[in-house]
Amino acid sequence: MGAPPTTDRGRLTRQRIVAAATEVVAEKGALGASLDEVGARAPASRSQLYHYFDDKSDLLLAVAEATNDTVLGGQQDLFAGLGTWDGLIRWADALVALQQERGGRGGCPIANLLGQLGERDDDIRAVLASGFDRWEASIRAGLSAMVEGGELRPGTDVAWLAANTLASLQGGLVLSQARRDPQALRRALDGAIALIAGYRVDPPGR
Amino acid sequence: MGAPPTTDRGRLTRQRIVAAATEVVAEKGALGASLDEVGARAPASRSQLYHYFDDKSDLLLAVAEATNDTVLGGQQDLFAGLGTWDGLIRWADALVALQQERGGRGGCPIANLLGQLGERDDDIRAVLASGFDRWEASIRAGLSAMVEGGELRPGTDVAWLAANTLASLQGGLVLSQARRDPQALRRALDGAIALIAGYRVDPPGR
Repeated sequence: MGAPPTTDRGRLTRQRIVAAATEVVAEKGALGASLDEVGARAPASRSQLYHYFDDKSDLLLAVAEATNDTVLGGQQDLFAGLGTWDGLIRWADALVALQQERGGRGGCPIANLLGQLGERDDDIRAVLASGFDRWEASIRAGLSAMVEGGELRPGTDVAWLAANTLASLQGGLVLSQARRDPQALRRALDGAIALIAGYRVDPPGR
Repeated sequence: MGAPPTTDRGRLTRQRIVAAATEVVAEKGALGASLDEVGARAPASRSQLYHYFDDKSDLLLAVAEATNDTVLGGQQDLFAGLGTWDGLIRWADALVALQQERGGRGGCPIANLLGQLGERDDDIRAVLASGFDRWEASIRAGLSAMVEGGELRPGTDVAWLAANTLASLQGGLVLSQARRDPQALRRALDGAIALIAGYRVDPPGR
């Protein structure tokens, strides 16, 4: 890893470089992105780039970390509501609404990096896996709170349901991206939610 | 599109070029693959390449079609068995076993191409979407046969269950690839199967 920034100004420069690299990677692909282009976009000199990052791989690692933070940070308020059935529905609806805004474009940014770099750089793969782990942990924490709050039956296997829900979400995003159809994500999340519904205590209307 | 082959020899040359391109794309990524490298690998001359393919994008389209055929062709026998509960379990087990052999590496080849090219080339995106459509149709046909065979309840929404199953499979592959853990696919498919189990007629042990 390059030098960690020691001043506020250094932190801002590093952030600016990572933000520029994230944009260039989104446009050109991780393999097609060049340090020259990142430098021009930031803007940052070659010596600044090499002060904060050892090489392109080190910069892509920082892009992976920033991507995790952006994707998970964007769901923070929704994660906080996951401890109730209504909050679970709101979270799923918000993910589908985002895909509708995007016309089904783009897929999951973490999965996109994984597809490009997962078989090429094991450090980056591990960072992206940690993003999925955090995501799954947030869903699991919500389901656990639903057990404690009496909305799901005691003994419900929340670890399994959370893993299944994240898989449905990821697969739904792949299919939405392929078909330019947010309804592919809707159907996938409806499946995950239907599975969870099987563990509800006194679900209304049954 | 370049000229379609009119002789057996032409068909073989074209196939050899597509197979070489598929390998180079797997190694270098779709954006990093060059026509020169494909030509050297096949081997094929520049004039042969341009006889069968207009340009790199046209060649990548053929790679996408070949990838669909390989992924779906490899499951043909398993698809044929999907019309029974036991066949459904066999199909899921075989997919997990393949990931175990691979140590969770590689993910889904169709999804990999989608991640690299889906936002860059709409023709290729449509071809990859058609691969997912064929995959989903095979699952749906199996579930429909289970309804007709009396294993699933009449009126079961097989289109929705098939969509959900393919999403779980795709998401499970993403998470297996990220974590180098075939169990991520296992959990995802178990979720999809549990959802289908809710529609079984007289499931054993209930």
